[in-house]
Amino acid sequence: MSTAISAQAVKQLRETTGAGLLDCQKALSEAKGNMEEAITILRKKSGGKVDKLAARATKEGLVESYIHVGGKVGVLLEVNCETDFVARNEDFRAFCKDICLQIAAANPLYVTREEVPSEDLNKEREIASAQLEGKPPAAIQKIVEGKLDKYYSTVCLLDQPFVKQSELTVKQILSEKITKIGENIQIRRFTRYQLGN
Amino acid sequence: MSTAISAQAVKQLRETTGAGLLDCQKALSEAKGNMEEAITILRKKSGGKVDKLAARATKEGLVESYIHVGGKVGVLLEVNCETDFVARNEDFRAFCKDICLQIAAANPLYVTREEVPSEDLNKEREIASAQLEGKPPAAIQKIVEGKLDKYYSTVCLLDQPFVKQSELTVKQILSEKITKIGENIQIRRFTRYQLGN
Repeated sequence: MSTAISAQAVKQLRETTGAGLLDCQKALSEAKGNMEEAITILRKKSGGKVDKLAARATKEGLVESYIHVGGKVGVLLEVNCETDFVARNEDFRAFCKDICLQIAAANPLYVTREEVPSEDLNKEREIASAQLEGKPPAAIQKIVEGKLDKYYSTVCLLDQPFVKQSELTVKQILSEKITKIGENIQIRRFTRYQLGN
Repeated sequence: MSTAISAQAVKQLRETTGAGLLDCQKALSEAKGNMEEAITILRKKSGGKVDKLAARATKEGLVESYIHVGGKVGVLLEVNCETDFVARNEDFRAFCKDICLQIAAANPLYVTREEVPSEDLNKEREIASAQLEGKPPAAIQKIVEGKLDKYYSTVCLLDQPFVKQSELTVKQILSEKITKIGENIQIRRFTRYQLGN
């Protein structure tokens, strides 16, 4: 039975492996549309030619870093924007530097609320509920939600109070920048190392 | 049969192991000029001195970063040593900077061979075997092992040729530093961001 292979998938496979159109179609067909498997098939057949996979950047932006004095804490950050023009903009660069400082100082674990694992969330919910035993049930849910908000504002970068202006969240600062610069901006990922941690 | 041993090789072996001139000449001669083997011979004879250094606890160190011109590639690195005194040593700092450059340029995925997931290893083994179909079975295993070594030298930082001196591996440069500085040093972890990857 043959599987319908989309032109989009073939294009992506060609870009990833540099292999020819027909080879990519065949490999995808053989892999029943599974991209990973198709790449493996091509690598086997290519006699090692495909092994040099070119990584393709799809977005613009900046990779920025910050090392705290003494070299015991460091941050690596990627912020995306739409054009390279904005990536070279002073305002954008200053924003990236500020976010690095934020991460070094406030030690977030995630960028957004969506990244918090649901088991962590359930645990927080459970702890909060246990602390409230005996209170009227109607009140409990509201208080628990409040406690979760507090939790988010500790572990999620976007929910944290901005270290240089604590009455605003990082998300609000980000929105300000987006409006000012006139391009969508996304804090994509970060890594924070603390010596020995 | 004795092999001609170059003064350059002896010098390199001395720097890597910290062993004496005569011992290095003997070891190289015994190893027929093979550097890796000479190191092994010296380690066996040293009564564990080299290994003892490598077993000492490393709790101090440095978090270092590097952003490639243009801000499209960035590296965050943690290197551990035994004392804060060494962490502030110029030689140690220069080593950390070099390793950042190495990671930016050569894009390793792991620090050591032990970190390579076994499924990746099996996949490489399978691909290599498939590429060799039809060759005599006796030859295949040897060639596959060779291809695996090649794979390690691509994805494992310690197995990579050092970008500033490609006849030595990063591991050999690390051993040199350990001997020179006289403290155990460990490349603990790194993160490399490439814009949009």
